[in-house]
Amino acid sequence: MSQSLVSERVYNFSAGPAVLPEEVLERIRDEMMCLPGAGSSILEISHRSKPFDAILEGADQRLRQLLSISDDYSVLFLQGGSRLQFSMIPMNISTAERPGDYLVTGSWSQKAAAEAARLSGGRVIFDGKPDNFCRVPESSEFENNSDRSFLYYAANETIQGVQFQDLPDGNDLVSDLSSEFLSRPFDVDRHAAIYACAQKNAGPAGLTVVIIRKSLLEQVPDNLPAYLNFREHDSNGSRFNTPPTFAIYVTDLVLQWILDKFGSLESMQAHNESKAALLYDVIDEFPEFYIGHSRVESRSRMNVTFRFADEAIGDQFKSEAAEHQMQSLGGHRSVGGIRASIYNAMPVAGVQTLADFMRDFAKKHAS
Amino acid sequence: MSQSLVSERVYNFSAGPAVLPEEVLERIRDEMMCLPGAGSSILEISHRSKPFDAILEGADQRLRQLLSISDDYSVLFLQGGSRLQFSMIPMNISTAERPGDYLVTGSWSQKAAAEAARLSGGRVIFDGKPDNFCRVPESSEFENNSDRSFLYYAANETIQGVQFQDLPDGNDLVSDLSSEFLSRPFDVDRHAAIYACAQKNAGPAGLTVVIIRKSLLEQVPDNLPAYLNFREHDSNGSRFNTPPTFAIYVTDLVLQWILDKFGSLESMQAHNESKAALLYDVIDEFPEFYIGHSRVESRSRMNVTFRFADEAIGDQFKSEAAEHQMQSLGGHRSVGGIRASIYNAMPVAGVQTLADFMRDFAKKHAS
Repeated sequence: MSQSLVSERVYNFSAGPAVLPEEVLERIRDEMMCLPGAGSSILEISHRSKPFDAILEGADQRLRQLLSISDDYSVLFLQGGSRLQFSMIPMNISTAERPGDYLVTGSWSQKAAAEAARLSGGRVIFDGKPDNFCRVPESSEFENNSDRSFLYYAANETIQGVQFQDLPDGNDLVSDLSSEFLSRPFDVDRHAAIYACAQKNAGPAGLTVVIIRKSLLEQVPDNLPAYLNFREHDSNGSRFNTPPTFAIYVTDLVLQWILDKFGSLESMQAHNESKAALLYDVIDEFPEFYIGHSRVESRSRMNVTFRFADEAIGDQFKSEAAEHQMQSLGGHRSVGGIRASIYNAMPVAGVQTLADFMRDFAKKHAS
Repeated sequence: MSQSLVSERVYNFSAGPAVLPEEVLERIRDEMMCLPGAGSSILEISHRSKPFDAILEGADQRLRQLLSISDDYSVLFLQGGSRLQFSMIPMNISTAERPGDYLVTGSWSQKAAAEAARLSGGRVIFDGKPDNFCRVPESSEFENNSDRSFLYYAANETIQGVQFQDLPDGNDLVSDLSSEFLSRPFDVDRHAAIYACAQKNAGPAGLTVVIIRKSLLEQVPDNLPAYLNFREHDSNGSRFNTPPTFAIYVTDLVLQWILDKFGSLESMQAHNESKAALLYDVIDEFPEFYIGHSRVESRSRMNVTFRFADEAIGDQFKSEAAEHQMQSLGGHRSVGGIRASIYNAMPVAGVQTLADFMRDFAKKHAS
């Protein structure tokens, strides 16, 4: 394979790890041998060095600015992904007497609820499975139990492509924000805790951002495995152990990119909505050919999911798309079909290329 | 500051994250925009993509080759660092009836033992604290309890610079290998489990390699928080959740570098011993000026620790060293003094520069 071919970037619709801004990748490349002023690569410097202090502080401040996070909340930079949060959230902020209540709207909230049930009696109060996870619930569909410690929901279900348009009621919400983190403004103040793994919208795999109401930290039980105790991370400023320094550096560059290029999450949201509309417009144009998974009112702006009446057409779709430099369009292996993940860093040109391709493909194959 | 100054690499003696091979950094830089054949950056590709499959398999195979790891062992690529292993090891492979026994030879094994005692009754059977952690024990100094589930030790104590020259007795050893991982051959077969966080000798922060005897996985309790269950990671081939893909990629490049440049860990060891000798020779030449922390027979080849009778001289040492392009020579904040970490990737030229500086400095200041 020639050098020009192997180094050619394509449009990457992967659900995560996922596309990053080219400007950010260029900066990482340019600084790889030596972080300016540090004398060494970002990969080589101590997590207690001055250059890394500046990175960690910068990431914290830019996150607070973009999401309007008040001083009532701690921002923690952790490892272990959503899987570890599935355990940490109920172990830290619920008890058997005051369990968490779970809205199950897709594969990830289902897994979170199962782990919470196993560890501390978490309850499922809405289950979208009978509807094949095609929508989020109305408030009238679930109980607001007075003995709950929190109400858990996944703001966007990455696999099914189902997204809450508005927050559920309550001021004790816990949100898995992973696959829509930083894609639109978000009312942090209504949450007990929010977590997001970075590898969708914010950076590489290996970093999980947790935003937690400080008052909850006082109630954390003392007998947890130490790494699972939010209080340890908070009291050590995310340096209870060596944090994932490179992933935090990349995430800070992505935050700078959002601020420089879009200025705010309102502007980021408008950008993302216009991108999503390009694809949903084609689906709506050919509703019998492209069978959208989500009901219209629950559609995700991050993961656009659909399938074909004839499965074989799906394989042809993916292989023809690959010939047009579009990759990773396969749906999650548990559901099949097509999934186009169009996170913050996916350029309009990429989405437009896919929309044009979809329109051509439908005209050719819809009979 | 001019561009040439800000981009100048110095000799970095940081204890971790730490120096990486320049050839590896150059390769990361050159591939940052697009991993050859992948169409995207290593930061952007799915952990279930073919290019990442090849990286994960390559890292597994090269580790097995270098450390002669048999099929009786699983190799796992996890997150959470040593801190999470302090909990996972006792929770997975010991019980209150069969606790782990701990040799405490420095700050890290002390922390590990405290966590095990808290979680499942781990026992300290040797405590080097009264000797100020200046040595590892003889076999005659601790009991081999027949009811122990494992014998835990830190092969190299990063903070104190104290290293086991030979393994303790037993075939049920658990080793924290973090700060000497891949620096010399190691008898994996005598171990129940080994773990190493990558950011000393193997890669960036955010990856922890665990090597565990497969037969132990069957006994893991079912009620652990899911991410803390080694069996989950094993049965999912280190993809129970999204692994730290970039850190695994870098570690695989470091493994390739060891194989290409040294061929084996025997050769790596010889290289490291000759580097360490350059520094210990100066300490032995000026024994009243450079007060070595470790007893001679327990000296670390990775972290060379010493102090001065007069503390103020230490500050002068660090600031003059910095003027000579040597950085991060300060001892851990808990012990003070000087620590020169000279991991695999520290070139002989860097160690020679430090040795020359030390000799000159002693001649100037020793009265």
